[in-house]
Amino acid sequence: MLKYAYHNLLASPHFPSALPKQKLEEAKPACETAHQEILADRSADILGFYNLPETDITHIKGFMAKLDPRFDTMVVLGIGGSALGNKALYSALKTERELPRKLFVYDNVDPVYLHEILASINLDTTIFNIITKSGTTAETMAGYMILVDIIKKKFPNDYRSRIVITTDKEKGFLRQVIKDEGYASFTVPDNVGGRFSILTDVGLVSSAFSGMDITLLLEGAAAMRNRCSSMDIMNNPAYLNGLIHFLYYRQGKNISVMMPYSNSLYDFADWYRQLWAESLGKRKDLKGRDIFVGQTPVKALGTTDQHSQVQLYSEGPNDKVFTFISVESFKHDYTIPNLHPDREEVSYLGDKKLSELLNAERFATEIALTSAMRPNCNIIFPQIDEYHLGEFIMLYEIQTVFTGKLLHINPLDQPGVEAGKIATYALMGKEGFDEERAEIEKYKQEHGLES
Amino acid sequence: MLKYAYHNLLASPHFPSALPKQKLEEAKPACETAHQEILADRSADILGFYNLPETDITHIKGFMAKLDPRFDTMVVLGIGGSALGNKALYSALKTERELPRKLFVYDNVDPVYLHEILASINLDTTIFNIITKSGTTAETMAGYMILVDIIKKKFPNDYRSRIVITTDKEKGFLRQVIKDEGYASFTVPDNVGGRFSILTDVGLVSSAFSGMDITLLLEGAAAMRNRCSSMDIMNNPAYLNGLIHFLYYRQGKNISVMMPYSNSLYDFADWYRQLWAESLGKRKDLKGRDIFVGQTPVKALGTTDQHSQVQLYSEGPNDKVFTFISVESFKHDYTIPNLHPDREEVSYLGDKKLSELLNAERFATEIALTSAMRPNCNIIFPQIDEYHLGEFIMLYEIQTVFTGKLLHINPLDQPGVEAGKIATYALMGKEGFDEERAEIEKYKQEHGLES
Repeated sequence: MLKYAYHNLLASPHFPSALPKQKLEEAKPACETAHQEILADRSADILGFYNLPETDITHIKGFMAKLDPRFDTMVVLGIGGSALGNKALYSALKTERELPRKLFVYDNVDPVYLHEILASINLDTTIFNIITKSGTTAETMAGYMILVDIIKKKFPNDYRSRIVITTDKEKGFLRQVIKDEGYASFTVPDNVGGRFSILTDVGLVSSAFSGMDITLLLEGAAAMRNRCSSMDIMNNPAYLNGLIHFLYYRQGKNISVMMPYSNSLYDFADWYRQLWAESLGKRKDLKGRDIFVGQTPVKALGTTDQHSQVQLYSEGPNDKVFTFISVESFKHDYTIPNLHPDREEVSYLGDKKLSELLNAERFATEIALTSAMRPNCNIIFPQIDEYHLGEFIMLYEIQTVFTGKLLHINPLDQPGVEAGKIATYALMGKEGFDEERAEIEKYKQEHGLES
Repeated sequence: MLKYAYHNLLASPHFPSALPKQKLEEAKPACETAHQEILADRSADILGFYNLPETDITHIKGFMAKLDPRFDTMVVLGIGGSALGNKALYSALKTERELPRKLFVYDNVDPVYLHEILASINLDTTIFNIITKSGTTAETMAGYMILVDIIKKKFPNDYRSRIVITTDKEKGFLRQVIKDEGYASFTVPDNVGGRFSILTDVGLVSSAFSGMDITLLLEGAAAMRNRCSSMDIMNNPAYLNGLIHFLYYRQGKNISVMMPYSNSLYDFADWYRQLWAESLGKRKDLKGRDIFVGQTPVKALGTTDQHSQVQLYSEGPNDKVFTFISVESFKHDYTIPNLHPDREEVSYLGDKKLSELLNAERFATEIALTSAMRPNCNIIFPQIDEYHLGEFIMLYEIQTVFTGKLLHINPLDQPGVEAGKIATYALMGKEGFDEERAEIEKYKQEHGLES
């Protein structure tokens, strides 16, 4: 079970200026309201992610059972919620679980990055999984057109078995392509938004392919959901952590730093970045009033960023809440040999485990930030495996929705990304965007930019 | 030559609430003072990085000329300023320049990451470069003891040729090791701090090894230094960008986002993070008064983070300044085939270059952020090569020092990292830290933590 150590988020003799515990008491009515709203949303089938642990996954296991064993690599084409979870899970487990198959995620339209992926894979043994709910995401469709074209030309009689599409169950252009071509397909459910979709087909297919135990992932998620169903915030880590972050945000701490002390878990900070930023960064409250809220999530890596960011974190403005993520036991570990036993500069490291040093540095940073009066907490993985990752995912999904309720915003929409999409359509010459193109021409002229 | 497009940092008809140009005029006396302080520091040989383009690098070229050609891989052991520059340069150029030799950077004490590196290299053909000025950095020395032990055991007669050490030219434990063992060595100069050391032996040796043209790197840096030597801020991009960031910081924008539209340049955002955070994040001003200043640098990746962070960036609090980095021409590019010419959902992408879509999305995000009144600028690389990277490095080093002068802090020290180092020593049982150990025991008891 994940542990949640929050002693440096609340006032103590070591940290008198932290949040007094009575603030949690005072927030009880707001928490009760948020809890009731979540229950109502769940009844209205708006928060589908709560029920994902009980989803039937036999279709994924069936797909894996039938898969041609020559495939040893999957390339996911997707972006945002159709990529970050896939990457995070794979990075977390590829070495700790020695996953037998490889995963690449092309989540950009950078040509150099595409070149690198193509140079790293063997097309003969690679299967491509295109993930987009709408079937129109520009970045994903650009990659789709390039890669499907390559595969069709290289394997004219056999390309169908190398392509899988994950999209809306009925609507959209790609669902038509699936019918026309007979590609294998998976579904992005209606009641689960992109950034909450890691435990749907979106995240599970590539995870099962790489060799993870996805049943265990769902079991961990179920356990955390049950742990976080109570109204008693002191026994509900998602609510408690959400409430405390909300209260610090209201005090002016507009930055939330997630700092795993584990390279394997670093990509989960990116998954968290989307969840927190896109869910809570909102212009309008539920009544349509301009409020411009949202805490900015920042990722950092321990110990690496001790030599980059901790100077700012401990001495700069007190504008941050910190979340360490630590791991008690690693599958791979090393003992530091006492190479210079008579040199005190280094002999203290001798005969210690590398993981012991890693965790001592984590604790040392906790002590340093606490003595500088910077609120911090620690999420502790007993070890990195599917079960604990499932717990982690559900913890943060619930925390995010709960915090959105406290902020009186809709944590499930993302109206602010439309403007950029429309400008891209206009710039790329899509039909029906003449007015926007004219606007952009005016903008260019004003700033003396080339047409 | 790098271009600096700052039209969305200053007020215009499209962005009336941006910084009025007269604010730059008003700041002229402060800029003049900062400039004079920089000149004085340069005379006093405090800002050694300014003179690095003229450093003699024949010793590096000599080392490369004599290097056994069997070595095709280098592993750098270092952290912070002894790692971030190495990684950033290598990531930027490995594919664009098709570098012939590989670089790994072990800049943590994560055992899983060490396991991954050891599984990825061939020890027979790998050379190790240990970089630490003091020779006592705990993370680097832990890796040194593990890896040198492995190499000594595997190559008892031949280990010396596989180890290179980069440290202080006279002082420290590792300089003694160099003498005792006869290892090849390089120097971290006295007048260049770690985070400014990318163009010293620290960054140049691994870059030359991987196959970069380090002469070109220094030429680019020289050109930018000359461009940024003028007191006329409108013709000095380092001063201008530093001043504008300073003025926005004073207006409450406590976050600076660097968002390259290039996977290859993403690691340079990490290099920038250290430079900006560690140089400017300070508790005390030059008179010793508590001021707790510092803008938090954040890295983001275009287009990827459009589907993760742009919702927050455009609708959340107006607490950020944005810096895009864009690339006009990529060596590797792809044309998107018009796979579905009769489907308007995707046909607009057909026959366009992937780089055209990437740059259109960058421009679309500029337009979206500007219409949401979020200040943004763009650093434009004509292409990614050593010359332009050299320019970029010098631009940001000068900008950082100049901004530090405007903030009245010392941009060259890092007093805030000591507390964590001391706590680590205490926790790891180093001699002479009994008092700190007793303090930590009290802390543990108070919070009910295991001993």
